[in-house]
Amino acid sequence: MAEKLWGGRFTKAIAPEFERFSESFSYDHRLALAEVRGSRAHVGALQRAGIVSEQEAGALREGLQRLEAELRGPASPLNGNGPLPELEDVHTWVAQRLEQLAGPAARKLQTGRSRNEQVALDLRLYLIDHKEQLFALLARLLGNLGRFAETYAEVLIPGYTHLQRAQPVSLGHHALAYAEMLLRDTARLRDAYSRVEVLPLGSGALAGSTLNLDRELLAKELGFTKLSQNSLDAVSDRDFACELTFVFALLGVHLSRFAEDWILYSSAEFNFLLMGDEYATGSSLMPQKKNADALELIRGKSARQVGNLTRLLTLLKGLPMAYNRDLQEDKEAMFDALQTVLGVLRIAAGVVETTQVRADRAARAADDPALLATDLADLLVENGVAFRDAHEIVGHVISKCVAEERDFRAFSTAEWAEIAPGFLSPERAAALTAAISVGRRNSLGGTSIEQVRAQARRIVEVATRL
Amino acid sequence: MAEKLWGGRFTKAIAPEFERFSESFSYDHRLALAEVRGSRAHVGALQRAGIVSEQEAGALREGLQRLEAELRGPASPLNGNGPLPELEDVHTWVAQRLEQLAGPAARKLQTGRSRNEQVALDLRLYLIDHKEQLFALLARLLGNLGRFAETYAEVLIPGYTHLQRAQPVSLGHHALAYAEMLLRDTARLRDAYSRVEVLPLGSGALAGSTLNLDRELLAKELGFTKLSQNSLDAVSDRDFACELTFVFALLGVHLSRFAEDWILYSSAEFNFLLMGDEYATGSSLMPQKKNADALELIRGKSARQVGNLTRLLTLLKGLPMAYNRDLQEDKEAMFDALQTVLGVLRIAAGVVETTQVRADRAARAADDPALLATDLADLLVENGVAFRDAHEIVGHVISKCVAEERDFRAFSTAEWAEIAPGFLSPERAAALTAAISVGRRNSLGGTSIEQVRAQARRIVEVATRL
Amino acid sequence: MAEKLWGGRFTKAIAPEFERFSESFSYDHRLALAEVRGSRAHVGALQRAGIVSEQEAGALREGLQRLEAELRGPASPLNGNGPLPELEDVHTWVAQRLEQLAGPAARKLQTGRSRNEQVALDLRLYLIDHKEQLFALLARLLGNLGRFAETYAEVLIPGYTHLQRAQPVSLGHHALAYAEMLLRDTARLRDAYSRVEVLPLGSGALAGSTLNLDRELLAKELGFTKLSQNSLDAVSDRDFACELTFVFALLGVHLSRFAEDWILYSSAEFNFLLMGDEYATGSSLMPQKKNADALELIRGKSARQVGNLTRLLTLLKGLPMAYNRDLQEDKEAMFDALQTVLGVLRIAAGVVETTQVRADRAARAADDPALLATDLADLLVENGVAFRDAHEIVGHVISKCVAEERDFRAFSTAEWAEIAPGFLSPERAAALTAAISVGRRNSLGGTSIEQVRAQARRIVEVATRL
Amino acid sequence: MAEKLWGGRFTKAIAPEFERFSESFSYDHRLALAEVRGSRAHVGALQRAGIVSEQEAGALREGLQRLEAELRGPASPLNGNGPLPELEDVHTWVAQRLEQLAGPAARKLQTGRSRNEQVALDLRLYLIDHKEQLFALLARLLGNLGRFAETYAEVLIPGYTHLQRAQPVSLGHHALAYAEMLLRDTARLRDAYSRVEVLPLGSGALAGSTLNLDRELLAKELGFTKLSQNSLDAVSDRDFACELTFVFALLGVHLSRFAEDWILYSSAEFNFLLMGDEYATGSSLMPQKKNADALELIRGKSARQVGNLTRLLTLLKGLPMAYNRDLQEDKEAMFDALQTVLGVLRIAAGVVETTQVRADRAARAADDPALLATDLADLLVENGVAFRDAHEIVGHVISKCVAEERDFRAFSTAEWAEIAPGFLSPERAAALTAAISVGRRNSLGGTSIEQVRAQARRIVEVATRL
Repeated sequence: MAEKLWGGRFTKAIAPEFERFSESFSYDHRLALAEVRGSRAHVGALQRAGIVSEQEAGALREGLQRLEAELRGPASPLNGNGPLPELEDVHTWVAQRLEQLAGPAARKLQTGRSRNEQVALDLRLYLIDHKEQLFALLARLLGNLGRFAETYAEVLIPGYTHLQRAQPVSLGHHALAYAEMLLRDTARLRDAYSRVEVLPLGSGALAGSTLNLDRELLAKELGFTKLSQNSLDAVSDRDFACELTFVFALLGVHLSRFAEDWILYSSAEFNFLLMGDEYATGSSLMPQKKNADALELIRGKSARQVGNLTRLLTLLKGLPMAYNRDLQEDKEAMFDALQTVLGVLRIAAGVVETTQVRADRAARAADDPALLATDLADLLVENGVAFRDAHEIVGHVISKCVAEERDFRAFSTAEWAEIAPGFLSPERAAALTAAISVGRRNSLGGTSIEQVRAQARRIVEVATRL
Repeated sequence: MAEKLWGGRFTKAIAPEFERFSESFSYDHRLALAEVRGSRAHVGALQRAGIVSEQEAGALREGLQRLEAELRGPASPLNGNGPLPELEDVHTWVAQRLEQLAGPAARKLQTGRSRNEQVALDLRLYLIDHKEQLFALLARLLGNLGRFAETYAEVLIPGYTHLQRAQPVSLGHHALAYAEMLLRDTARLRDAYSRVEVLPLGSGALAGSTLNLDRELLAKELGFTKLSQNSLDAVSDRDFACELTFVFALLGVHLSRFAEDWILYSSAEFNFLLMGDEYATGSSLMPQKKNADALELIRGKSARQVGNLTRLLTLLKGLPMAYNRDLQEDKEAMFDALQTVLGVLRIAAGVVETTQVRADRAARAADDPALLATDLADLLVENGVAFRDAHEIVGHVISKCVAEERDFRAFSTAEWAEIAPGFLSPERAAALTAAISVGRRNSLGGTSIEQVRAQARRIVEVATRL
Repeated sequence: MAEKLWGGRFTKAIAPEFERFSESFSYDHRLALAEVRGSRAHVGALQRAGIVSEQEAGALREGLQRLEAELRGPASPLNGNGPLPELEDVHTWVAQRLEQLAGPAARKLQTGRSRNEQVALDLRLYLIDHKEQLFALLARLLGNLGRFAETYAEVLIPGYTHLQRAQPVSLGHHALAYAEMLLRDTARLRDAYSRVEVLPLGSGALAGSTLNLDRELLAKELGFTKLSQNSLDAVSDRDFACELTFVFALLGVHLSRFAEDWILYSSAEFNFLLMGDEYATGSSLMPQKKNADALELIRGKSARQVGNLTRLLTLLKGLPMAYNRDLQEDKEAMFDALQTVLGVLRIAAGVVETTQVRADRAARAADDPALLATDLADLLVENGVAFRDAHEIVGHVISKCVAEERDFRAFSTAEWAEIAPGFLSPERAAALTAAISVGRRNSLGGTSIEQVRAQARRIVEVATRL
Repeated sequence: MAEKLWGGRFTKAIAPEFERFSESFSYDHRLALAEVRGSRAHVGALQRAGIVSEQEAGALREGLQRLEAELRGPASPLNGNGPLPELEDVHTWVAQRLEQLAGPAARKLQTGRSRNEQVALDLRLYLIDHKEQLFALLARLLGNLGRFAETYAEVLIPGYTHLQRAQPVSLGHHALAYAEMLLRDTARLRDAYSRVEVLPLGSGALAGSTLNLDRELLAKELGFTKLSQNSLDAVSDRDFACELTFVFALLGVHLSRFAEDWILYSSAEFNFLLMGDEYATGSSLMPQKKNADALELIRGKSARQVGNLTRLLTLLKGLPMAYNRDLQEDKEAMFDALQTVLGVLRIAAGVVETTQVRADRAARAADDPALLATDLADLLVENGVAFRDAHEIVGHVISKCVAEERDFRAFSTAEWAEIAPGFLSPERAAALTAAISVGRRNSLGGTSIEQVRAQARRIVEVATRL
């Protein structure tokens, strides 16, 4: 039992199958740098409390520095250079390695500190370490969507509801809808991080620290903005993991919708978009295939994120105070959620960069006269027909067009007189186009080219400042 | 098809079984007041755009006012006074009733407005309407926990990790851990509402409005703080429902943990708490039973909230732009999530108010010497033993105590000399108590009575200001 | 407290807000008939055990019969005829009503029986009562899919993978893919019901019955095929609810895939299918719209089922033995899951019945030469080219076709000689059609017309025998 | 692009970040042996179809045999002996390695076969390969529970409902409740496997095979019992993964309940059980701790399984026919679900083997007179009191006992006369014990020692035959 951080009152050895089952080192080794950083701060606290001497503190600091260098170096023992040692967890590994590097002073480092708070600290530090990358990738994708929208503001496509052609919209407007979702994700992420950046250190195992800690100073050293206020809560709080995972899951769902649309638009039937070779794949059997696999994987990974979230919430449900070993199950879900969101953001950005637009095919589809039905009804309204009556009249117009395979813009004045007696604008009906339709929707948030250009510029600018 | 708001191009009647399957009126009638409010704002917009005359606007406003009065009155047709009419949805019902009350002008009200934006608007308004009640219930529960903690700050219980006795803590400290969780829930709720309060009106069916709307004015009239920036997004955005549901789910999980602990503490085995008769139930078969059913239901309802969240995220996954009928499935989940969170907050507050504390039983449990093992190790550390060595020594002490069924505080000096040669503080070991242990954990967030009192006061005060 | 089935040791009244929070009568009144049936069986058991006299048993039986008649009658107090009485649960209601109908003998009915086993019994009976309807609806949908496949076996459409055109398939083959999924659902449902049909009666509150019950006889009377073997398990087992809900969720996911495809195929872009007016809806704003709302709701309701399943599993997670009040939360999820599956099956069947096929549009799409790429590669293979080399050659053919906007079937012999020197079958390449391609896939499970016809007949026949 | 199995029509290289994002080899290398086995069967099919000559078939078979030997050997390149090659997936790896081992014939192996069916085949084979181990572990745990129940049939503990003491039960009876759950899991697993063992091979990419395959023969060679009947369904069916994952999730939830109970029973407060050192851990800070970590991890891992299930169902929701790349996301969930269930079964079995029972503590708790309240009420019933009246009387008895801190067994005859005038059995009331109570519950499924012994033997025997 010598290698365990605990074990004094145990007489029989742990069962090997339980040792394998319960170890977390195979995944929590990712926290090694965070553990080193937290330990360095703890050395300061121990020194201030008189638990370690200046000399011991020096030895520990030097040991930690050497350990950090080792971890950051190309030959890091935790970075794919050979199999990991078989150990319980990252705390054990750091403790053992530090004892080799810093000598007996290392045996004092565990004073006034428990794994319960260390693991909470390390996970928070790890997430904080990835904050910049997350925002950078969000900015990249937002910027790409904004630029895409600017470039293709004038390309019109059918706008869909219920996947039925509804009204013409700018392709840029469509891309910006996803930018709006990502802006909300960004705001949620910011809010969530304000609750990640809370220092749990100083909570002891559950009841608080007996050392006279300067928690404000520790927070400052470690880059936290707030202090936890209750030790029982601090060692068992995984809200921050749940909340980030929720933000990632909703972001994932947004990108699943984006992916769905772009997969549709890349099909032979829609054909508005052509995937770049860089983000498409072929088939081992069907030589003609060019598949939007990148988007399909993005769509599929949203399910993974929903699964991670369900897992974390179900894990916490009904757990008694304070720390329970169940909480060890938080880490793989959190690591996976983080890696997944980084991946989908990166790939989505690449897809937007490399996708080509088939403006001709889009134009042909956007020219479908059915898309102008609402504008036709509006013409009737302008002539004094109540909207609900105009709606009915146009309904019949469309039925006639479908039955006779015609375009209402080619109706004769006589036909109009029969359909809508007293209708004053047959020539304006005949002149309706997708461009006119789009131009009429020029209030804030509408699809007019002017609005789309302005919104695209705003998104690009916001992305720059993220 | 006359009664539908659509139907012009349809020739066959809707299948009755599909009519029943697709209706939403049986639950979205809850949105009737929101629909009236939104309609009133739309009348102003139509008047400003010259679509309705001053006279028509007047008729509509009067009709809407009468409708509102009807809905708020005791005989409201939607409030349990007889079966609901068989209608498609709340929009149809309001349109029909308004036509009866306001005459033909009502047929103009649908101009420049679609159900897609109406339903988004109504759901947001409905949630905003419940904001005050939500915060009030949070404040009530927080206040109750704070007062409970103040009252019982000096009652000590065993603090648990892994459900094993770990270190003594104040019962107030334990209650405050849950208050901390609720404070985070409150912050999350506030953040989430900032994304609920965004006006979608002016988005048309998907492409924006053709009316020259003053959206800022509409937002002001309806109590929104922001405007949606993209019409496609605005009619299909259900982020706000997901986010609130997540906040409720995590809050529900917190209360499930609280419930678990208080159920444990009300058992014959722990016996620290006695449920009030007001929130307990008995058994139809076993006359002696007094069950903490209120807490069990609170715990169980967390699963309902996780289910609601999974449902919403799965619903949105992979949906194409913009509105799809799938979105109708958002409402029951959202209504249920809201009613459930209101219920569990209310009941949890009542439970805290009526639960009695069995201080004598708590004291007896908190006197378990095993709870003082860490403090004993600290005494060794003070005498210069490295913590990990002290840990091992105390492990052996505990084993000896278990084997001999003794309390280490009764060890003789000779025994100490054997166990820990050179240990200078046997008399301090003998004098260790739960009160001393608790008192030593006096840094911010620790369980000392002083800390607990201060934190309890803070919580009560925060609750007052919510 | 008089109206409660418990309450002897309570002195204070239940809080009204808790009474409302904890009542289940508003939904478990659906179990009233099951409760009556279970009570009738219990009367027999009590009589056999000598607890009630022949006369008392007679009174109880007569009372139960009158109660059943009341519940089955048009004026049933539980069937929408006025508001429900405010009561705790269905057990209380039946007990009270029975006392009115059967007199004091009713006070003996609770002997040797607990609500814990009653609620388990009632829920099982309720599910058994819906078994026939479930299988009938499955049979209806399966039959409709089979007949659809038979009718449209010769209509060819592009088969898709990754939503890219892959190889031609029969539209019937496509419909039969969904029939296969439903056959698996049927098998799973049958398996699940074998675990629903287990009698829990005779378990007491948790420890078993003290009456000398003939459980075999009870099972026979109530239509169960097996007996529970452990009383603690029997009163807290909700596996059957989880398992049915899982079966419904997976079935729902299958129909979500079916819905997705048919929504796509009803779009202007694919246009292979035309929804019947009976199962489509229009738009309040856009008169031209004909939306496949029925399918969208079917797709959306799969999320509801996943939510119900998550809810049940999360509910049970970590619950101690035996009955806990949390279990009350099972019923709404189970009722909703059942009603939802009945609804989606019914509507999907109606959609299949009323949808029209646009054979001309399908044929045009299926004629896309890209769909024949695999068959072209096969020609090369027949000429001795290794498949992976053939795959590469055809890849270049397709690139050339895309670049030059040509059909490879129009390539000259000279062109073939350049592309694939020594290729012996240019004239066979030129003659390739979708029909040839489909005809070549004639092994079991393939898409040849012959296979499709045979499979369609099998499905229709299986549906008849369900 | 040379190393891809596709790529003929692509001109630009795949983006490195997309290559990393989309690779599956890092996890699907687990399928290498299945891929080899499936390939061997395919060689036979190709030979029978005349695609490969006898000589080529021989070369392929020999190559596959060498590859299998390599994979089964200690130096397997896929078994932790150095980093994995950077490849797209296991199919690519096997194809490349086989070309090295078998020469140019390997380039023919892909004829008439697609990755879509290969991946479906491999995953099914992989799951079939683990079937025996799964049933063996179930048998081990069932056997252990049965033997535990036999050994401790006479140890009585309080039975709980609502975590309140309800009636005495045998500790063996409690253990057998979990055995019943596992028996249902076993039955579900068997049912699920009947749907795993379906051969998808012969489906081509989506439309069926053009080879004249003998699918019956293939099934026999590969150990399948059924053939898929529809090629579109066969390449996109992941029901078997969902169903197994559901079975594992429910099994996980059962073990979470078992874990919860045994964690409770190992606490200082209940104290009926003592974890073996082999499956417990200590604390790095608190030397006295002995934590039931094994059980906590088992409990926590149920959340992982619920997450895996949610993930798979959400993944499939709304996917169009047939194969989509989203499906790649099935494998990690399935692998994790399988490894997790193997782990929790193994560890639970070990825990049952090594846990010690504290019979004295159990006896003391089971002697609580409140547990006999139902039996006391039964005595009144035997004297002709209606049960609901008896329930009320005993309620008052219990209140009196609580108020006066007495045991009703010590009530005087005079007291009984006052409480229940005419009560004929005060001396039988005085003689009530837990053993008598347990003995009275002797019908099938009850907690009498006789019943428990019989059930325990049945479980042990069933386990032997699994």
